[in-house]
Amino acid sequence: MLAHSAYGKSKIRIVQVLRGRERHDLRDLTVAIRFKGQYDESYTDGDNRHVLPTDTMKNTVYALAARDGIHEPETFGLALARHFLERNPRLNRVRVDLTEHLWGRISGPKGEHGQAFIRSGPETRTAAIQAGRHRTLLGAGVADLMVLKSADSAFSDFLRDAFTTLPDTRDRLLATSMTATWRYSASDLDYSSVWQTVRSTLLGEFATHKSESVQHTLYDMGQAVLNRVPEVSGIHVVMPNKHHLPVDLSRFGFENRNEIFVATDEPHGLIEATLVR
Amino acid sequence: MLAHSAYGKSKIRIVQVLRGRERHDLRDLTVAIRFKGQYDESYTDGDNRHVLPTDTMKNTVYALAARDGIHEPETFGLALARHFLERNPRLNRVRVDLTEHLWGRISGPKGEHGQAFIRSGPETRTAAIQAGRHRTLLGAGVADLMVLKSADSAFSDFLRDAFTTLPDTRDRLLATSMTATWRYSASDLDYSSVWQTVRSTLLGEFATHKSESVQHTLYDMGQAVLNRVPEVSGIHVVMPNKHHLPVDLSRFGFENRNEIFVATDEPHGLIEATLVR
Amino acid sequence: MLAHSAYGKSKIRIVQVLRGRERHDLRDLTVAIRFKGQYDESYTDGDNRHVLPTDTMKNTVYALAARDGIHEPETFGLALARHFLERNPRLNRVRVDLTEHLWGRISGPKGEHGQAFIRSGPETRTAAIQAGRHRTLLGAGVADLMVLKSADSAFSDFLRDAFTTLPDTRDRLLATSMTATWRYSASDLDYSSVWQTVRSTLLGEFATHKSESVQHTLYDMGQAVLNRVPEVSGIHVVMPNKHHLPVDLSRFGFENRNEIFVATDEPHGLIEATLVR
Amino acid sequence: MLAHSAYGKSKIRIVQVLRGRERHDLRDLTVAIRFKGQYDESYTDGDNRHVLPTDTMKNTVYALAARDGIHEPETFGLALARHFLERNPRLNRVRVDLTEHLWGRISGPKGEHGQAFIRSGPETRTAAIQAGRHRTLLGAGVADLMVLKSADSAFSDFLRDAFTTLPDTRDRLLATSMTATWRYSASDLDYSSVWQTVRSTLLGEFATHKSESVQHTLYDMGQAVLNRVPEVSGIHVVMPNKHHLPVDLSRFGFENRNEIFVATDEPHGLIEATLVR
Repeated sequence: MLAHSAYGKSKIRIVQVLRGRERHDLRDLTVAIRFKGQYDESYTDGDNRHVLPTDTMKNTVYALAARDGIHEPETFGLALARHFLERNPRLNRVRVDLTEHLWGRISGPKGEHGQAFIRSGPETRTAAIQAGRHRTLLGAGVADLMVLKSADSAFSDFLRDAFTTLPDTRDRLLATSMTATWRYSASDLDYSSVWQTVRSTLLGEFATHKSESVQHTLYDMGQAVLNRVPEVSGIHVVMPNKHHLPVDLSRFGFENRNEIFVATDEPHGLIEATLVR
Repeated sequence: MLAHSAYGKSKIRIVQVLRGRERHDLRDLTVAIRFKGQYDESYTDGDNRHVLPTDTMKNTVYALAARDGIHEPETFGLALARHFLERNPRLNRVRVDLTEHLWGRISGPKGEHGQAFIRSGPETRTAAIQAGRHRTLLGAGVADLMVLKSADSAFSDFLRDAFTTLPDTRDRLLATSMTATWRYSASDLDYSSVWQTVRSTLLGEFATHKSESVQHTLYDMGQAVLNRVPEVSGIHVVMPNKHHLPVDLSRFGFENRNEIFVATDEPHGLIEATLVR
Repeated sequence: MLAHSAYGKSKIRIVQVLRGRERHDLRDLTVAIRFKGQYDESYTDGDNRHVLPTDTMKNTVYALAARDGIHEPETFGLALARHFLERNPRLNRVRVDLTEHLWGRISGPKGEHGQAFIRSGPETRTAAIQAGRHRTLLGAGVADLMVLKSADSAFSDFLRDAFTTLPDTRDRLLATSMTATWRYSASDLDYSSVWQTVRSTLLGEFATHKSESVQHTLYDMGQAVLNRVPEVSGIHVVMPNKHHLPVDLSRFGFENRNEIFVATDEPHGLIEATLVR
Repeated sequence: MLAHSAYGKSKIRIVQVLRGRERHDLRDLTVAIRFKGQYDESYTDGDNRHVLPTDTMKNTVYALAARDGIHEPETFGLALARHFLERNPRLNRVRVDLTEHLWGRISGPKGEHGQAFIRSGPETRTAAIQAGRHRTLLGAGVADLMVLKSADSAFSDFLRDAFTTLPDTRDRLLATSMTATWRYSASDLDYSSVWQTVRSTLLGEFATHKSESVQHTLYDMGQAVLNRVPEVSGIHVVMPNKHHLPVDLSRFGFENRNEIFVATDEPHGLIEATLVR
């Protein structure tokens, strides 16, 4: 009767300051942990004997960070996954999701301050570990990456039916808040370096693509990542179409030379695809 | 290389006023539509000839509501799904998700006003239709149902390891913001009546269960729904554990007789399970 | 050079369970405390000797709740304000803002459960205390009260200029998420009873008023409160106009008989007024 | 009886693309407009004859942007304020609040793309115009500027009472999401240049100040702005203290060398001050 179950802890907030002499480094993460395993009696009988409390999951995040340091989200997540698998025989699979909140250094006339930071964003860096007894899937990603292009974006020659009112356009604003997640085919990578390469590939393709639709650009971006980054075996991209509607200025006696738009959030298109080798 | 793709429109907001003579009825929905089908050329070649614009999906929501009226989220969603499948040969599967924002009537000394409403919530009513060429899955649910019990909730005798600091408790506050979704084994039901029965079953079990854990109570709630509502073939329940931490009052010279708590949102436990017949 | 300063603690979350034998009561508050006084040295010289930490303000909320119990937001806020004024000679004025999150009881076949609760809302009950050495202002309110009327709402015969495109309407949907705050002219009231009277007066007037505009209805509601509730000396009401735009169905071959609307949040009108005796 | 009233439009979203040959510029604003004047009959009698609809306010934002272009938030806001004052004799005072959402250019191997943008933030740039018949106040600001320093922040030797449990610290994390607003003593400034100077002054002082408290650093920052920027006549700074709590690792057998913190949002300290010449 119990077809599926999972339990864990979400929104574990941890900040680690790595204190060099003059220069500190900051790791600012939100972590979620999810267990799947032989925990049926806790559901059916209220028998908690094999249930590791979610409070302990949280404590483990702090303890492992203290013992080993957080270097990259990927390696920290892997260490957490291994820790739980080794110590919990009932655990079949553990998932660790990490979101890194990004900070830059405050700059001054003498250069960067070593111990003062400014949040960059809204973009975040993500990592996901799905680890079982025999196999571990490791992925990374970027979330809430807001981009907009004001040229080379069209949407025309689409299917029309009785309820279609959208006009063709060869020159529209294209804006999205992108989420991309990709899977690595190897481990022991320089994850931060690969992450930078994937991110700049996504941004570069978005900027330069001659877009016939969100679908078209999304595919191009994914393909470019697979072409340029051999360590990535597959990529999933989600791009909401944050519509920017041209304002009808003719009512006020003005012409809209594709210049004035209303930015909207509701409703939005939602386009997604997974590309693999 | 394109392993998976989908596209659609999210956050379509529609309010319909059904105007009786003295008494109006209100339907207030947020709708999302998602297409899966043979749309690869739009990704790979920028060929939009078979792509129904997401703007048309939105228009269709308004047009069908105008033509047929919104009676229940489930029937409205089914009508949308059928409309799209019939007219789009490239469409293999369509998903329609509906969230109903609930309104009650404002009451006065002479009873309920017929044409004035007050939002009830944060709870919403949901429906989900997954329709293909050969098979349609129809489900419903409740989201953001916030409940709390101040008795009959324990969590003890759990697994302890080196990082476990949580004490056993036989009397804690249990609070959650529940999301439940269930699948119907039949169609042409009185969906609103079944929805009320499922909702009151979930609430009643939550209130009366002698809880050994969130898992234990979640299972009991799901089981009660399956026992009492034959039209439901399976149910998925997600219950974040919104921790209420007892305040250490001894530092101020007071005793906390299990009375004073800090309500927290971060981190939270997250418990889920699917029960089927 | 320091023209104004204030400091305090916001978002203090406290839940108190008042445990009767069979029946528990719940108080669920978010509290904010703000001090104004002779604290200039803390700004200008970093001299903290007279600064009560905001952490202590938080502790005081828990300590006073433990010692005296939270009966009503107004009395609890007054007790906090007096506590701080008595013990902090440098404090000139303290402001305490309280938001009560409302819970009802879960009902079952045998009536209401004594120890299980369901959140009602999005509406909250508020109270505000502004206390100085010589004078205390006590107020209360309601926030996020969402209401909608589908009849007796017009907006016509307004000023038109070159940029006006809005048509006159004699029958529109009127929806708002109301915030009202009022001031009491007396203390030692049965605050919960007065709160209920004000709230039902606001709702009743909203429902029955023949509205020529949001302004018109807002004024009527405020006036009714002053007429009916002698303990209230003044009331401030803020009503965003949550526009519901009729959908142009003629493009699809249908007529919109004032039935189908898009609910929008951006942009919204914002109407406010203060009425006093 | 009507002691105060105001009405207007909030959350007007406008994006303007200024199209150079190779290089586009982007203005992305949220605008709010508020009227105060002789509008009492609209409240008391439902007489709308002198009421400019808030829909027209919105239209005016689009029309003036089309006619004159949006160059800086300050000048655009001033133009809006003057427009409304000139054409509405009943209008006594108008307030225009503008929030600019900031975008940078996407960079590629060949430098910056001219027509592709990435949102920077969460920080926004703000401007506020309060214009009456005889006097206009012009201000600007920055909102949601998140900063953190991991050195040179203390909080000690503060007032202690019976409920104080906070220990002294000479080395804590100081994090805030700053909002600052300042008033200009002159008009016809190069607002963007002054804005950059104020912003970098705030950031630089935050980074280098030997902080005894949030109050102490806030004052130092405000003072630096007044010293360095003669065009600013006064500045108001609000700094929530986003507490980062050291984790007690001794329970797990580790020492916390001021390295591992829980980032929290509830509750938070809230410190504010206004500095004038």
